Amino acid sequence: MSQNNSKLTSLSDFGEFGLIERLTKGFEPKHKSTVKGIGDDAAVLEFVDLQTIVTTDILAEGVHFNLTYTPLKHLGYKAVAVNLSDIYAMNATPKQITVSIAVSNRFTVEALDAFYEGIKKACEVYHVDLVGGDTSSSVSGMVISITAIGTAEKGSVVYRNTARENQLICVSGDLGAAYMGLQLLEREKELFKEDSKFQPKLEGFEYILERQLKPEPRADIIRLFKEWRIVPTAMMDISDGLSSELLHICKGSDIGCKVFESKLPIEAQTKKMAKEMNMDPTIAALNGGEDYELLFTLPTAFFDAIKDKPEIRIIGQTTAKEQGMNLVAMDGTEVPILAQGWNSLT
Amino acid sequence: MSQNNSKLTSLSDFGEFGLIERLTKGFEPKHKSTVKGIGDDAAVLEFVDLQTIVTTDILAEGVHFNLTYTPLKHLGYKAVAVNLSDIYAMNATPKQITVSIAVSNRFTVEALDAFYEGIKKACEVYHVDLVGGDTSSSVSGMVISITAIGTAEKGSVVYRNTARENQLICVSGDLGAAYMGLQLLEREKELFKEDSKFQPKLEGFEYILERQLKPEPRADIIRLFKEWRIVPTAMMDISDGLSSELLHICKGSDIGCKVFESKLPIEAQTKKMAKEMNMDPTIAALNGGEDYELLFTLPTAFFDAIKDKPEIRIIGQTTAKEQGMNLVAMDGTEVPILAQGWNSLT
Repeated sequence: MSQNNSKLTSLSDFGEFGLIERLTKGFEPKHKSTVKGIGDDAAVLEFVDLQTIVTTDILAEGVHFNLTYTPLKHLGYKAVAVNLSDIYAMNATPKQITVSIAVSNRFTVEALDAFYEGIKKACEVYHVDLVGGDTSSSVSGMVISITAIGTAEKGSVVYRNTARENQLICVSGDLGAAYMGLQLLEREKELFKEDSKFQPKLEGFEYILERQLKPEPRADIIRLFKEWRIVPTAMMDISDGLSSELLHICKGSDIGCKVFESKLPIEAQTKKMAKEMNMDPTIAALNGGEDYELLFTLPTAFFDAIKDKPEIRIIGQTTAKEQGMNLVAMDGTEVPILAQGWNSLT
Repeated sequence: MSQNNSKLTSLSDFGEFGLIERLTKGFEPKHKSTVKGIGDDAAVLEFVDLQTIVTTDILAEGVHFNLTYTPLKHLGYKAVAVNLSDIYAMNATPKQITVSIAVSNRFTVEALDAFYEGIKKACEVYHVDLVGGDTSSSVSGMVISITAIGTAEKGSVVYRNTARENQLICVSGDLGAAYMGLQLLEREKELFKEDSKFQPKLEGFEYILERQLKPEPRADIIRLFKEWRIVPTAMMDISDGLSSELLHICKGSDIGCKVFESKLPIEAQTKKMAKEMNMDPTIAALNGGEDYELLFTLPTAFFDAIKDKPEIRIIGQTTAKEQGMNLVAMDGTEVPILAQGWNSLT
């Protein structure tokens, strides 16, 4: 982006169609299934012998993101990434997205260019086509709405309500890092508010910042499932926090669960930041949200096949519904798991 | 909705999931193609041997709608209707929608109930399934984002860039009414501002108000095309105004056009309101927008087949690109058509 304000272009200098044309330039369809992308009343897609998977998210400034510390390019990337995560969580492959934004006039065209650069980067990394969208002004902040469309072979989709009793509960990657990254950014923002000469101290916390600002959905795990010939019995992505997602799987599948605190995968930086802030890293892992890891269940017969895979961690087991949902703490005591995940409405 | 404020429920009394559950209750899938609707990470659809048509719109309070005079039930209905219009404009059939909203805490749950009642009504009338969505709070006004998904047999989709020279230009219904309805609502709002005891005078203008508040996409015309064995050479819906859409078709198809002012279908109420407001009804028809009628082109061989159909009107013909885009005025003079359609970014 230009450092010279005089070179920045206001949105009202562009018509809606001129702006869409500029922002979507260079997005070339990669998929044969994209018959017609941007440029008509609607996109035309053709999926032969496949099921179509559709998910949509709405992200609001001041609720889901804060532009004080979120570069617009990262925001574009993240907005796509979190949507694709929902497609992977169905054991499916994302193919196309639509991107709609409402922005106030304080945004420049160059700012939106940066946002779309991030969108484009995510489209390249995850091999999806931008096939449509809409732009509008808004009376206040920025609102982003993305719809992702994917495909799955018939019979291969994994739902969240199909776990059974006495199965393994697994997660990919690690938990709580994105939440601690957010806490760090919020702390530095407050310090900056008090002293505008303040220089944010972010060294040594690159991992948790990256987890917050540039999450990556687990396309790799879905590919590994195929390679390993594993089909989970139930699966969802961890966007609102492990507790909340466990509740969805257990309630939907009419079962209980027992999860071991000692098995929760928590990175060193997450623990270090939690300590600095006098927080319990387990709470961050359970209720933090925005991990975009996969939570899934497997028959116990898969134990040997997966116990040494570095990409996934067995964190517990499903139980009969009557046993409830419990966390076995480090000291062996059992405490009920309550969903205290992130809620965008409060 | 209750008249008693004490019975209204604030959004923060509900969790996000409780709210979604309440709002989407009673939306039963009607289509076999809806394999899995609301309730998982994503919806699962199955279209056998059909192309998938996808379109999305974002609507912002204060830009696309004004809650002073737009009942929320009507707003829900209209938000769906305008999206479906884009699917019909591809000569396709809508099947599913997703609905996402961001709303500030000043909205009550009962207000959102009314909004979803409108969504539901539109789903029933146009036979589409609600299969997903998202809800979020917003720091200020309401933003609605809807994605509509439809199907078309291979080879039956009609694009906007496929018109040829010397073809008939046709429109369904009439033009300019929704715009004049908006002018009326805006006038009464201003008068109400000046005197809160003022009673809006809307009698005799029911048609133009209905066109503004409760537009109906032309599903019937798409069905009639099948019955009449007509496939337009190019088509789009009229959302931003006839001029703007003519420009899209002509630019996309590399042709010109000649449209006759005397042939523009304008209803009596539209003309009456235009007269009251010292406006030219032709301007309302050309640039008003929100008609959600279909604009399409046909080979001249269809002239006899359609000339007496009350549902459609031949308004002109396509020409060579070099002849430009012209309106033949009532007095026979030709004036260039400029796109001055509604632009949500200015």
